[in-house]
Amino acid sequence: MKKPLILVTNDDGITAPGIRNLVNFMNEIGEVVVVAPNSPQSGKGHAITINSTLTFEEINLEGPQRDYSLSGTPVDCVKFALDKVLTRKPDLVVSGINHGANSSINVIYSGTMSAAVEAGVEGLQSIGFSLLDFAWDADFSQCKDYIQNIVKKVLENPLPKGIVLNVNIPKLKKEEIKGIKVCRQAQAKWEESFDERVNPHGKKYYWLTGYFNNQDEGKDADENALADGYISVVPVKFDLTAHEYLQELGEVLNG
Amino acid sequence: MKKPLILVTNDDGITAPGIRNLVNFMNEIGEVVVVAPNSPQSGKGHAITINSTLTFEEINLEGPQRDYSLSGTPVDCVKFALDKVLTRKPDLVVSGINHGANSSINVIYSGTMSAAVEAGVEGLQSIGFSLLDFAWDADFSQCKDYIQNIVKKVLENPLPKGIVLNVNIPKLKKEEIKGIKVCRQAQAKWEESFDERVNPHGKKYYWLTGYFNNQDEGKDADENALADGYISVVPVKFDLTAHEYLQELGEVLNG
Repeated sequence: MKKPLILVTNDDGITAPGIRNLVNFMNEIGEVVVVAPNSPQSGKGHAITINSTLTFEEINLEGPQRDYSLSGTPVDCVKFALDKVLTRKPDLVVSGINHGANSSINVIYSGTMSAAVEAGVEGLQSIGFSLLDFAWDADFSQCKDYIQNIVKKVLENPLPKGIVLNVNIPKLKKEEIKGIKVCRQAQAKWEESFDERVNPHGKKYYWLTGYFNNQDEGKDADENALADGYISVVPVKFDLTAHEYLQELGEVLNG
Repeated sequence: MKKPLILVTNDDGITAPGIRNLVNFMNEIGEVVVVAPNSPQSGKGHAITINSTLTFEEINLEGPQRDYSLSGTPVDCVKFALDKVLTRKPDLVVSGINHGANSSINVIYSGTMSAAVEAGVEGLQSIGFSLLDFAWDADFSQCKDYIQNIVKKVLENPLPKGIVLNVNIPKLKKEEIKGIKVCRQAQAKWEESFDERVNPHGKKYYWLTGYFNNQDEGKDADENALADGYISVVPVKFDLTAHEYLQELGEVLNG
């Protein structure tokens, strides 16, 4: 069988340990092409670059894969890879491994997951991976077998059109991880608190800070599966229509 | 009855004609506070500013509302307004009027709609409005009655938790608009094509361009309702879980 073509991207930047680990894991499965941001793009959500321009270059990093860095967002990387870098459609797009959680509502802020979603919009098989460890020198070794297994299963059993996977991995040793749990997105939100400071010229400025508030107690919610020691896998769709509310809304607006 | 408190934001920037029209429309309904970006933020999706800082200032613009400009994204504006500007929860958040369509898959790229979604995540009633006219001097007058009616109906009949509205208005004269149609998000995507150029120093750079490809023929899809002369209203949710696929995915991954 021909080796699958795997496009790898992320939001922490092309040199982040998370993506380098993911590249190594994917090199054992397929032919790998990396198109990733040349700088950190955390929290960029589904941003695209339309009011400025992009530059890109091939860079030489260890391993058999080809590596290209782009001056844009994660979503730009997916678009650029498909239009300018790859000569055929990839069999799979993987994004990550993110340094930090993208569970629950974080899916909408996450550059990692937005890249995965963009690949889904393009009709491609796509998975985003995140480890619940923000540290730059996080240990990704426990992720390897799980990630490779999920990738192989998706390659063998393609996801339905319109669905991508959001995989989050707890910060645990391999033997402490209880397994994989398919989950729904937990109901949770950030309680923001802007940290006000004064610059040397006397002008106020602000840092976005906050804490994460999990309002969900369901065992089938990703936040709680992670807290229980499972890898959470949420099937994510990008048809945002609340189909179940269409009829009632019609009555409210036109009734 | 006490006047409703209405927070207004957008992604085209606080001085854009679209938001100034929306502010004028809302001034006739409630007490209005504007917190909007100090520069254009189109295509910023659900981006938040976490690796740099924000500044904000009150500015004086015509009308009874209070206007504050922030150096961040549309989503930053919603977060900042709730944490630092408003002293009580707004009864409604409106975003727009965007100069250009946010129908179909554009909902995920749109700063306008991401601000509306962020307000929904915060548990607030929220609506994004867009006019299918990119021009800076677009005529927003035909929007007024429709927007005011939708806003009043939502204030009287609150949306269920977890749902916000994506309203798109065709570029037609008021008497040409056929009415309001509740729709699902059309299946469509951008076919991207990066425009390669060479800068004066000999280095290649790229502009993101593309064309919109509507792959949906359903009369109940927003793209088609707009083409038929209707205002489209899509109820949008931010639980992205593909609930209908949870069981099968469990069998694929753990079976």
